[in-house]
Amino acid sequence: MTGAAARRSFGSDNHAGTHPAVMRAIVEANTGDAIAYGDDPWTARALDELRRLSGTEGDVYLVLNGSGANILGLGLLLDRHESVICADSAHINTDECGAAERILGTKLLTVPAPDGKLTPALIASRLSGRGDEHRAQPRVVAITQTTELGTCYSLAELGAIREFCTANRLRLYLDGARLANAAAHLGCSLAELASQADVLSFGGTKNGAMGAEAVIVMRPGDTVNAPFLRKQQMQLSSKMRFLAAQFSALLADDLWLRNAAHANAMAARLAAGLADLPGVDVVHPVESDVVFARLAPDQVAELQRDWTFYVWDEATSVVRWMTAFDTSESEVDAFLADISAVTRAARV
Amino acid sequence: MTGAAARRSFGSDNHAGTHPAVMRAIVEANTGDAIAYGDDPWTARALDELRRLSGTEGDVYLVLNGSGANILGLGLLLDRHESVICADSAHINTDECGAAERILGTKLLTVPAPDGKLTPALIASRLSGRGDEHRAQPRVVAITQTTELGTCYSLAELGAIREFCTANRLRLYLDGARLANAAAHLGCSLAELASQADVLSFGGTKNGAMGAEAVIVMRPGDTVNAPFLRKQQMQLSSKMRFLAAQFSALLADDLWLRNAAHANAMAARLAAGLADLPGVDVVHPVESDVVFARLAPDQVAELQRDWTFYVWDEATSVVRWMTAFDTSESEVDAFLADISAVTRAARV
Amino acid sequence: MTGAAARRSFGSDNHAGTHPAVMRAIVEANTGDAIAYGDDPWTARALDELRRLSGTEGDVYLVLNGSGANILGLGLLLDRHESVICADSAHINTDECGAAERILGTKLLTVPAPDGKLTPALIASRLSGRGDEHRAQPRVVAITQTTELGTCYSLAELGAIREFCTANRLRLYLDGARLANAAAHLGCSLAELASQADVLSFGGTKNGAMGAEAVIVMRPGDTVNAPFLRKQQMQLSSKMRFLAAQFSALLADDLWLRNAAHANAMAARLAAGLADLPGVDVVHPVESDVVFARLAPDQVAELQRDWTFYVWDEATSVVRWMTAFDTSESEVDAFLADISAVTRAARV
Amino acid sequence: MTGAAARRSFGSDNHAGTHPAVMRAIVEANTGDAIAYGDDPWTARALDELRRLSGTEGDVYLVLNGSGANILGLGLLLDRHESVICADSAHINTDECGAAERILGTKLLTVPAPDGKLTPALIASRLSGRGDEHRAQPRVVAITQTTELGTCYSLAELGAIREFCTANRLRLYLDGARLANAAAHLGCSLAELASQADVLSFGGTKNGAMGAEAVIVMRPGDTVNAPFLRKQQMQLSSKMRFLAAQFSALLADDLWLRNAAHANAMAARLAAGLADLPGVDVVHPVESDVVFARLAPDQVAELQRDWTFYVWDEATSVVRWMTAFDTSESEVDAFLADISAVTRAARV
Repeated sequence: MTGAAARRSFGSDNHAGTHPAVMRAIVEANTGDAIAYGDDPWTARALDELRRLSGTEGDVYLVLNGSGANILGLGLLLDRHESVICADSAHINTDECGAAERILGTKLLTVPAPDGKLTPALIASRLSGRGDEHRAQPRVVAITQTTELGTCYSLAELGAIREFCTANRLRLYLDGARLANAAAHLGCSLAELASQADVLSFGGTKNGAMGAEAVIVMRPGDTVNAPFLRKQQMQLSSKMRFLAAQFSALLADDLWLRNAAHANAMAARLAAGLADLPGVDVVHPVESDVVFARLAPDQVAELQRDWTFYVWDEATSVVRWMTAFDTSESEVDAFLADISAVTRAARV
Repeated sequence: MTGAAARRSFGSDNHAGTHPAVMRAIVEANTGDAIAYGDDPWTARALDELRRLSGTEGDVYLVLNGSGANILGLGLLLDRHESVICADSAHINTDECGAAERILGTKLLTVPAPDGKLTPALIASRLSGRGDEHRAQPRVVAITQTTELGTCYSLAELGAIREFCTANRLRLYLDGARLANAAAHLGCSLAELASQADVLSFGGTKNGAMGAEAVIVMRPGDTVNAPFLRKQQMQLSSKMRFLAAQFSALLADDLWLRNAAHANAMAARLAAGLADLPGVDVVHPVESDVVFARLAPDQVAELQRDWTFYVWDEATSVVRWMTAFDTSESEVDAFLADISAVTRAARV
Repeated sequence: MTGAAARRSFGSDNHAGTHPAVMRAIVEANTGDAIAYGDDPWTARALDELRRLSGTEGDVYLVLNGSGANILGLGLLLDRHESVICADSAHINTDECGAAERILGTKLLTVPAPDGKLTPALIASRLSGRGDEHRAQPRVVAITQTTELGTCYSLAELGAIREFCTANRLRLYLDGARLANAAAHLGCSLAELASQADVLSFGGTKNGAMGAEAVIVMRPGDTVNAPFLRKQQMQLSSKMRFLAAQFSALLADDLWLRNAAHANAMAARLAAGLADLPGVDVVHPVESDVVFARLAPDQVAELQRDWTFYVWDEATSVVRWMTAFDTSESEVDAFLADISAVTRAARV
Repeated sequence: MTGAAARRSFGSDNHAGTHPAVMRAIVEANTGDAIAYGDDPWTARALDELRRLSGTEGDVYLVLNGSGANILGLGLLLDRHESVICADSAHINTDECGAAERILGTKLLTVPAPDGKLTPALIASRLSGRGDEHRAQPRVVAITQTTELGTCYSLAELGAIREFCTANRLRLYLDGARLANAAAHLGCSLAELASQADVLSFGGTKNGAMGAEAVIVMRPGDTVNAPFLRKQQMQLSSKMRFLAAQFSALLADDLWLRNAAHANAMAARLAAGLADLPGVDVVHPVESDVVFARLAPDQVAELQRDWTFYVWDEATSVVRWMTAFDTSESEVDAFLADISAVTRAARV
């Protein structure tokens, strides 16, 4: 699967390029000199906009990628003997090459969560040994919105987790690499989502940016060390204006929300089309920009000859089909046609 | 000194924007889907070009910024009980918020080096205690080319350090955030410089890129863990093609070398103009894109009203004036005229 | 449960004191000066004895406690992007306050293992993503012998794990804090157990020492960094002779094996007595010096008024009763009588 | 220099064995069962005594060795982006195999200090860049009392450092591996010394213990995480009573102070004897239990044939002669006689 995809990739929302409006903003920021490391007017403007959108009383920090955002954000909430409760499917557990353990030195207390979502009961199952010096102390609950399985916490579910955390002296980190998709799905504001967390990331890259993420710290007390840790963790960009311009473009006229809503709609269209196809099972609720489906291994192989996507679980023959801000209806339909052809042939 | 500089900044080569050819390449790479994390044709091409330019038998890894490059590169050469010998002015010691210590867990054995350059004798002064389990074991020599003081190791000096390292079971890391400026100054190829090191960084950002650095590993044995550590250290870009395109643009028609040569020439022009000005002392040899000068504190203050630059050492009233790929002769001359006016006035 | 236990504690094998022969050896080592940090004749002798007993071709390192042994031993087998597969009940996962994550920076890939024992199939369940730079790479399998649940891998089980590890490029670490109890239970030599591992710990403390553990490295290639890492990890004792003397005492006339066999026998006696008591369920095979039993919460509370032991799992009302090298038959019988009285009363 | 020294070693105060009263206390603590990890009456008593002696309002933690004490103590005062100012000769810098960098991830800002002592002016020289996110932030000043060069801060010198720290938002850590020698030299109480620090270590091992150190935290706010970090840093002893008994023995009838005073007196006797010997220069003030002397390299070699001691600096031919609690006057005199013979012969 090397190279530029001949056809639309359903491999990942980061197979897409940069949204034209974002690219335009980057080009326009390329004018004259600017103080490095964020002391420039583009950054000042983007941070203001992000502060307003999230309703933070703390502050916002731009970083270079999603792992960087997670490590910075989690680190702000953790002391050295404290641990993080997360779903076993969490990106910080499965897809960051052990950065949480190596860079932060923290233990992840993972919980099997069939649909990728934690609940107060699941969190409670990892709370034993508090106060016991032999145990890494549970301190942060890390959730992903939308989850790695494309599911989405409702505001009520988030509220219940928040309440549980408050009652149990736990802090809440929200990995929002695809937070825009959640806002679009739930029809809520970013501030409504952000207000549930102590610290969150807000992803630009999977939503039309070239490469830009924001760490949003909701309370002033948690921001004290953030500038230093961002630098130490190699996430401070020198020509920061080019990160800032990306966010300003995404926030203008709610482009971030429209991009996400479109990607969600394309996944919904794909799922709707699959409903008519016997032999293809959709295995998780489709609540964002991704469809997880089970079909026969040989059908997977045949489809992969022409289309780019990933096998999520070889053992159960589940694949992941992901849309993006720039997926078109006709591409979805063409993909559906091929899926139909492949699975129909199998049934003859 | 907030905001876009009204006039040319002499603050840093990263106050400059992105070279137009680099920006063009970024825009042109924004076409269709591409596999993420570097499995795309733009990355394949840029890595090929970088491999050829550096003459490596190992491999090349694109990363997001200079600190990321240094940490990845140093880490490839170090075991957990080993330490790094470097000049006390080294960027890894003074400007990365302790990343070497925290992210790598390594000790830096710093040596006072008045002109920013290590020598075999200076390195030898930090070699005591080898084999003694109580001592962190000196293992890597880290040099910067050009140095933080704008000086440049000659090929002979590099060769002597290399020879010393080989003879003393030491490995050589070269921080090449401004390696292009050294190649331009020395009139040598990148391969001639790279061949002296075990691992080096090659900076794009300060030389016209928007934000892209390369870690070049010279020997195959040292590359085994590099992909994993790059990811773990949060330096793996998802939409990698946009990093790759920057390097391809810089390498086309030797733009990297021409940019550096121009910046060097502008610093030389500035230094030449200063030679005629009594009351301004140039305190280091001008061998790249920077001039360090001493002038009276009140003159510094007066100049900073109109121009952007940094005081390097408050105690000795030494300032740093840095040029960039896009500094023009007329800007240098205008700056010189103001320096002249300010210092002349003082002498009246 | 503060203070010296009025009666025999069944709380832990480290509630016991120091075996008289070990104490004698310590006192006898207190004669004149000795070079510090292990360059003394007591250490030379103990290491020789330990090398012989384990049959290592590598080397042996004395350390200060069990966590120190585990961290040193695991660290010798791990690169920075590699992870450890272990049972979720493993001491390194549950009882070392996250030392593996913080001190080594490694991820633990935990597997639910009802009886505390890994199997090739359980290990295989954690091997996905090898070669994928986004995943911490499984490299070390860590087993505990005897396990935290008092169970004991048979030599055949160990051999199967060893074979699986070899076939799958995995290395085997054995946490042998209670390895003596396993040798006693299996009737095998220490070398037979050690030969299955790449690195193991061999515990003295729970077997009659005052506080001394050994890290045994089976192959020469793995010992290169061990002296440095032991020092860096704060496990190098200055007056090492007093650690060495403890091991020499334990190894003389197989005291280590006799102590373990006695503790095992006392646990077996306790289990045998419980077999006659309705209302007390023994929940794991009794294969070492510990009995896990389920009895009603109010009975637990009543027993704890007179006896020292721990509730292992509040939710299921399972308690842990542990014997030691110095537990006497009469103490077991007195304890049994009280258990009987408490549970009998409940049934009336 | 392997093996038990045939004659009195002048190599180190940790070449000595265990003081008989300490050994007696260890043997006496070996009675019956005791709860592990410090929840026993011996520990309760020793901690009470240490709290009283130091006058702490915080708490005291027993650990296994000096490096462990330094890492635990420093760590309690440091955030992740903060650094430690210390003399370049500090044990944490030169003799712990980089533990501060690896285990704590902290940068050491070292200052050349000819007599091993920091001063406000020397500390001030390392305070640049505060508030700058590119710099590891100076936060802790670490001093050693007595220093690695045998010198001793006066109470006035300590007070000046303390005052400077308070005025500059710096915290003070005191490495007291030989704090008893300082109290003996200065004729002051432990509390007078401890009151100057935020956290300190108090060494037992070099003063007659078998192996026991205490970390004394002076203010309650700094003790919150200490129990967890001690465990995580592998410094929590299971059979803690045997550490506690050592301290109780040392504190009974001021044995700690008498031991130190005796060792100091033996070093003073040695220095006094050397005063009459031409060709031997004492190179640092003799203010504790050690004499640093310069004599010709061939004389060093000749003396080392019969006596155990270390060359401190090969380049300058400076040796270290150290006494201990059990060094006798006649041993000093015999050593002096041999030194005299060796140096006299050279002059003939």
